[in-house]
Amino acid sequence: MDRLADEVVEERMGQLAEWTLSGDSIQRTLSFADFKAAMAFVNSLADMAEAANHHPDILIRWNKVTLTLSTHDAGGLTSRDFDLAGKIEQASTG
Amino acid sequence: MDRLADEVVEERMGQLAEWTLSGDSIQRTLSFADFKAAMAFVNSLADMAEAANHHPDILIRWNKVTLTLSTHDAGGLTSRDFDLAGKIEQASTG
Repeated sequence: MDRLADEVVEERMGQLAEWTLSGDSIQRTLSFADFKAAMAFVNSLADMAEAANHHPDILIRWNKVTLTLSTHDAGGLTSRDFDLAGKIEQASTG
Repeated sequence: MDRLADEVVEERMGQLAEWTLSGDSIQRTLSFADFKAAMAFVNSLADMAEAANHHPDILIRWNKVTLTLSTHDAGGLTSRDFDLAGKIEQASTG
C-alpha cells in the first residue's frame, strides 16, 4: 500500500467536504444528540473498521466523535484512508 | 459539586496507581489484545458512564484506550471523577 502523492490527496479531499487534512492524516468531527447516540455511531463504525481491517483513531467527547485516519505502515495517507472515509460518509448521511 | 482542594486530589491519586494527573484532569491508558477487545471494554465503560451520568473523554487507538476525566462544570477535578475512576479500576481488574 503506497503513500499517495500530494496531488492525489488533494483530489480525493475534494470528494470529502466534511474532512480536513491535518499533517499526514485526515480528520472529521461528528456531532450527535447525546452520548448514547455517539456510542451507537462508534459501534457501527467499529464494524466498518473491522471489515476494512483499517482502524481510525476515535475520540469520544460526550456527543462528539472525532475520527483521525492515517496509514501508519505507509507513513502517510493511502487509498485505504480515503476508501474508509468514503464509507463512513455514506453511513453517516444514511 | 465542588472542585477538590489540591491535597485531596493528591490523597485520592494515591489510591489510583494506574492514573496520572494531567492539569485539571486524570488520565489512564489501557491496553487490550486487539481492537475488538478494546471496543468491548469501551462499551462496558459507556454503561458505567451513563449510570454515573459522568462521561470520560475516550480515545481509542486500535488496542489502546485512553480515558481522561475532569468535571468541566466545576473547572477541575471533583469527587465524581475519582468515584468513576475507582469504578473503572474495579471493572478492569475483574
